[in-house]
Amino acid sequence: MKLSSMAMAGGLSIALGVMAANAVAKPKSAPTMQQVLDASKPSDWRALDPNNTLYMDLPSGRVVIELAPAYAPLHAQNIRTLAHEHYWDGTAILRVQDGFVTQWGDPQAEVEHPTHKKSIGTARNTIPPEFERDVDPKLPFTVLPDGDIYAPQVGFSNGFPAARDPKTSKTWLAHCYAMVGAGRDNAPDSGPGTELYVVIGQAPRQLDRNIALVGRVVKGMELLSSLPRGTGPLGFYEKPSQRTPIVRVRLASDLPPKQREKLEVLRTDTPTFTALVESRRNRSDAWYHFKAGRIDLCNVPLPVREAKLSRH
Amino acid sequence: MKLSSMAMAGGLSIALGVMAANAVAKPKSAPTMQQVLDASKPSDWRALDPNNTLYMDLPSGRVVIELAPAYAPLHAQNIRTLAHEHYWDGTAILRVQDGFVTQWGDPQAEVEHPTHKKSIGTARNTIPPEFERDVDPKLPFTVLPDGDIYAPQVGFSNGFPAARDPKTSKTWLAHCYAMVGAGRDNAPDSGPGTELYVVIGQAPRQLDRNIALVGRVVKGMELLSSLPRGTGPLGFYEKPSQRTPIVRVRLASDLPPKQREKLEVLRTDTPTFTALVESRRNRSDAWYHFKAGRIDLCNVPLPVREAKLSRH
Repeated sequence: MKLSSMAMAGGLSIALGVMAANAVAKPKSAPTMQQVLDASKPSDWRALDPNNTLYMDLPSGRVVIELAPAYAPLHAQNIRTLAHEHYWDGTAILRVQDGFVTQWGDPQAEVEHPTHKKSIGTARNTIPPEFERDVDPKLPFTVLPDGDIYAPQVGFSNGFPAARDPKTSKTWLAHCYAMVGAGRDNAPDSGPGTELYVVIGQAPRQLDRNIALVGRVVKGMELLSSLPRGTGPLGFYEKPSQRTPIVRVRLASDLPPKQREKLEVLRTDTPTFTALVESRRNRSDAWYHFKAGRIDLCNVPLPVREAKLSRH
Repeated sequence: MKLSSMAMAGGLSIALGVMAANAVAKPKSAPTMQQVLDASKPSDWRALDPNNTLYMDLPSGRVVIELAPAYAPLHAQNIRTLAHEHYWDGTAILRVQDGFVTQWGDPQAEVEHPTHKKSIGTARNTIPPEFERDVDPKLPFTVLPDGDIYAPQVGFSNGFPAARDPKTSKTWLAHCYAMVGAGRDNAPDSGPGTELYVVIGQAPRQLDRNIALVGRVVKGMELLSSLPRGTGPLGFYEKPSQRTPIVRVRLASDLPPKQREKLEVLRTDTPTFTALVESRRNRSDAWYHFKAGRIDLCNVPLPVREAKLSRH
């Protein structure tokens, strides 16, 4: 089993000196996150659904995005259509604003010549806002115990950071690191998913309920977070030559099974996940002298691993 | 007046579509952050103290760090000594862990040959932990109104994000984006400031009170956040050739006045700062349909600007 870099990003590794990094943590009563993962069962993990998984290939490697159809079904369908019709092939990363977002799409549509933009084929040009949805008892929601600054209740739903308000019976995805959304103009229906962004800094939770989050980067996040920052307004690149080209974007289900990534994500509706959260609220690693006893929604790691090879 | 990129990082720019970016925000009753800054008085800003300002020169440009002697006086003094004696010249960026920290220091001391490490000159090798300090009525503390997940009270003190506990009468700096700390091993006194790190992702608040924060990057943050991520354990680079060299680190007061950066930061103990916080809690920009009405400690921008040129 190999944990991807996304699993690390949440802070699996905590020691800040290399000697501490090499030290063997003494086993104590509370397990570490690694011990929780080592003790996990196969049923604690789920494979990504090929119909909800995007591969975005950059010259530097592959970014894998899991879509969130339970929260943004119309956007997910439009994005599937765009990928199926190869809309993003030959487009580019247009904007990297430090501590905020990396954003990509058609340079002609968004920056240079709006009248010369690429055809969006059979996809829709406007989509009703999917900024929140009704709470549904059938939709899993694992509540975090420590509250939140922005919402009455936060937790995880289908592997995504989410929030909800019992008073309005509404629920919505939260702008944590690695979450992907559909950029829009001032009109609420102006973000059809042609132009997407990913959070690369401190969670900009003020965007929650203002824009449709459509998924999360589960692998290759470092390819989007380490790009040179744009020097124009809002972090847009000033010269076309500064943009990173997007080679292609494919829906996993449009590829033969043998060409698909074999990734599994930890389920967020299991006792194992609850134990993982607890291992992060109170760190038992030898390096920690003070245990926070609390955790913020966007500090909970969401582990991803390569599935074990099997014949099918 | 030119706002540096750090001012932008906190989210000065909010529009996610370029048409929104170009739109002129309609003036409403509540001012935007830009309107708050435009209306600020000279006394709302303070120049950086040359005795508490570090310049770290990388091949890609300059990083400016403001030290926090009110919270880590012994570390600040040791760091001044190390800079004065040119300790970091020729050292390197050793580690970049995605969504967590960028860390620098002497490769020989930390990675390769501990017995061949650089001399630290007249600096101290161990320093008593400065993880928190006593509350002092003379130390400014502007409380934020929306609470915090990790601490009983949070706000800003001398321009730094900070927390405090009225029950223990202790206060400490908080691990927000761009905060700089002194890496340590398991022993609390093992971080003398020779090896420093900066937060490049979601605020790892679990580190608060576990390690000494010594300052904050006020300019050039993008030079540290956009570096290639290390592929070894904890994000350490696996090959020396992957490291970014540090050309030199200087204390501003060790340079002639003409060679110093002319930077000013917005004071955090003024009505202007309170108005800025309010402009971020409730965005009046035309793009926002839902106003959060709340703000997290690490989402408050800390504006920096070039001082107007004057003859002295």
